[in-house]
Amino acid sequence: MSELYLDDYKAGDRFESPELDVSEDDIRAFAALYDPQPFHLDRAGAEASPFQELVGSGWHTAALTMRLLVNSRFRPAGGILGFGVDELRWPSPLKPGDRIKARIEVLEVRPSAKNPDRGVMRVRVETVNQDGAVLISFMPLLRVPRRNNGG
Amino acid sequence: MSELYLDDYKAGDRFESPELDVSEDDIRAFAALYDPQPFHLDRAGAEASPFQELVGSGWHTAALTMRLLVNSRFRPAGGILGFGVDELRWPSPLKPGDRIKARIEVLEVRPSAKNPDRGVMRVRVETVNQDGAVLISFMPLLRVPRRNNGG
Repeated sequence: MSELYLDDYKAGDRFESPELDVSEDDIRAFAALYDPQPFHLDRAGAEASPFQELVGSGWHTAALTMRLLVNSRFRPAGGILGFGVDELRWPSPLKPGDRIKARIEVLEVRPSAKNPDRGVMRVRVETVNQDGAVLISFMPLLRVPRRNNGG
Repeated sequence: MSELYLDDYKAGDRFESPELDVSEDDIRAFAALYDPQPFHLDRAGAEASPFQELVGSGWHTAALTMRLLVNSRFRPAGGILGFGVDELRWPSPLKPGDRIKARIEVLEVRPSAKNPDRGVMRVRVETVNQDGAVLISFMPLLRVPRRNNGG
């Protein structure tokens, strides 16, 4: 798969990732290392929580979304390098057995005034499950090189 | 450690997590599963990148920050449940050998008008390394129960 430069993207461009299956073991393994709360680790603890069932950490959904982006055809040259993320929301929780995929839409492409070899790109990312429910959405700001190094 | 309710927090309250050491193995293990890009996986690939050295995934920094929060005395009753996060930034990358800790500051405490048993709390989270460099900052919106269930 070929890499893309800032010059290759325009607002409105859309990409979709492959699908990924998420198991209860995946959810517990992430939670044990990074978010050890009862509603991510065991069914009994989850039933007593506002979720009422075992759900994945929101940061697990975020991390899996990154993996989906890396494995998509979005592919900015040099990799996906983010300065930050705005408006991150988790409208529905990740659940064991979910089959998820990510969608990317280019919102804005802006060459750098100071650095002719690159620019920044604002995109919207959404990850949905097999029922189309949105599990996470956010807007990263990415650093993307220009094709001719501005030369 | 005791749990805290919405009524126990006020704007300006601050908490600090214990420290955590992050190894190159930790960085590679996270990257292999969730962010398999060269600058997170191997030194040669990292030297050719804008980082010029191996660095952790920004989502790894976020996930480790969650672990630090869960292990701090911040402890809202029922757990740390976020609706979303605003203004997430990665000013400096996570590096092998970093010793990190998270700081939490309460920005706003707002009882729910509709649900007398809970409210929302806006906090600012920052994770710093051993030199005081900020690796990540963000503002989560959290769901927190009231002490007397509003009764």
